[in-house]
Amino acid sequence: MAYKENYPSVLLEEAVDAISSLPGVGRRSALRLALHLLKQPVENVHHFTSSIARLRDEVRYCRHCMMISDDDECAICADRSRDHRTICVVESVRDVMSIENTGQYHGVYHVLGGIISPINGVGPSDLTVRELVARVAAMAGAEADASADTQPEVILALSGDVEGETTAFYIYRQISGYGVRVSSLARGLGFGDDLEYADELTLGRSIVNRQIFRP
Amino acid sequence: MAYKENYPSVLLEEAVDAISSLPGVGRRSALRLALHLLKQPVENVHHFTSSIARLRDEVRYCRHCMMISDDDECAICADRSRDHRTICVVESVRDVMSIENTGQYHGVYHVLGGIISPINGVGPSDLTVRELVARVAAMAGAEADASADTQPEVILALSGDVEGETTAFYIYRQISGYGVRVSSLARGLGFGDDLEYADELTLGRSIVNRQIFRP
Repeated sequence: MAYKENYPSVLLEEAVDAISSLPGVGRRSALRLALHLLKQPVENVHHFTSSIARLRDEVRYCRHCMMISDDDECAICADRSRDHRTICVVESVRDVMSIENTGQYHGVYHVLGGIISPINGVGPSDLTVRELVARVAAMAGAEADASADTQPEVILALSGDVEGETTAFYIYRQISGYGVRVSSLARGLGFGDDLEYADELTLGRSIVNRQIFRP
Repeated sequence: MAYKENYPSVLLEEAVDAISSLPGVGRRSALRLALHLLKQPVENVHHFTSSIARLRDEVRYCRHCMMISDDDECAICADRSRDHRTICVVESVRDVMSIENTGQYHGVYHVLGGIISPINGVGPSDLTVRELVARVAAMAGAEADASADTQPEVILALSGDVEGETTAFYIYRQISGYGVRVSSLARGLGFGDDLEYADELTLGRSIVNRQIFRP
């Protein structure tokens, strides 16, 4: 249903404009949220706005992996018990949080800050690919000195769409000369997925890449 | 799906706490919004937060009808072409906007600022009932002097639930002594509604309150 816009107050209209600029928030929801905030105590609203302003003003990024951090080194990169010779390359901060929540990964990360997308005007130079190549080069150099027992690895944990594949292929070409193992996430049926509803591409790949049954 | 909470940054966590305090915004959405804001230019984020803070700090309410306003008299009350002898009593600012959007009403309003709800601890003294009674009393006094041709009217445009009915009845008792006509919104099937899916109470009332057919 269309909502005609005759706001009783310019202040209200400007707040609705601002709130509805958020992704997924329409003008109706924005009005609801603005009127909700109006009913809150002044100090709560100030806390709300200052939390957001401080996040934007004071946020820092880890100098190694470009993850959001309160410091110039994130908690993961600072953790010496983690495997610093395995780098998981992801698109965004959320991906790091998702993978951390699995509890299955003990290496470090590299946040690209986006994905190569000619349609959205995002090229490799808009991402942190150069920083990744420098890390891989440094790791390869250290390897040569240390005669370590395992080969360093870069996991390309990017989405399975065209843009993700393009980005993975671009990065692969940039780092393949350094003698690191390059892997990508396993693709296949999700746990609990019904065969009947799987798309053909996923089902096909999960047959080709079938795994030894370990009950 | 539960989302474990190990935020990479205290700033991020505080912003997510703040955003998820909004009604209908979960922590996952709040994280998505916080990361969206992080990607925006600093000046956009400052504009976002200051629009909200200014709304809360500088908003004013019409001294007559308690509507949100940029002034101490709202545009509707200041409009002399409107019928100031018909007052439509509503729960909230949104109701005024909704009724204005119909283009069918040319009187003035009175915003209660809530609804009587013992369960939520909202009593008549938390609403602007006293101000409404004063307006009605003043209108009745003016009527007596002016020997006007039409009776002043108060429309109780409250929701049809128990709390709305309670509030309407309470207000009715407060103002019925002043010789004003008191009306409430028509209840019945919505336009385009299917008879089959109407609840019995609504259908019953719409038979009892049937209207002359005017094709």
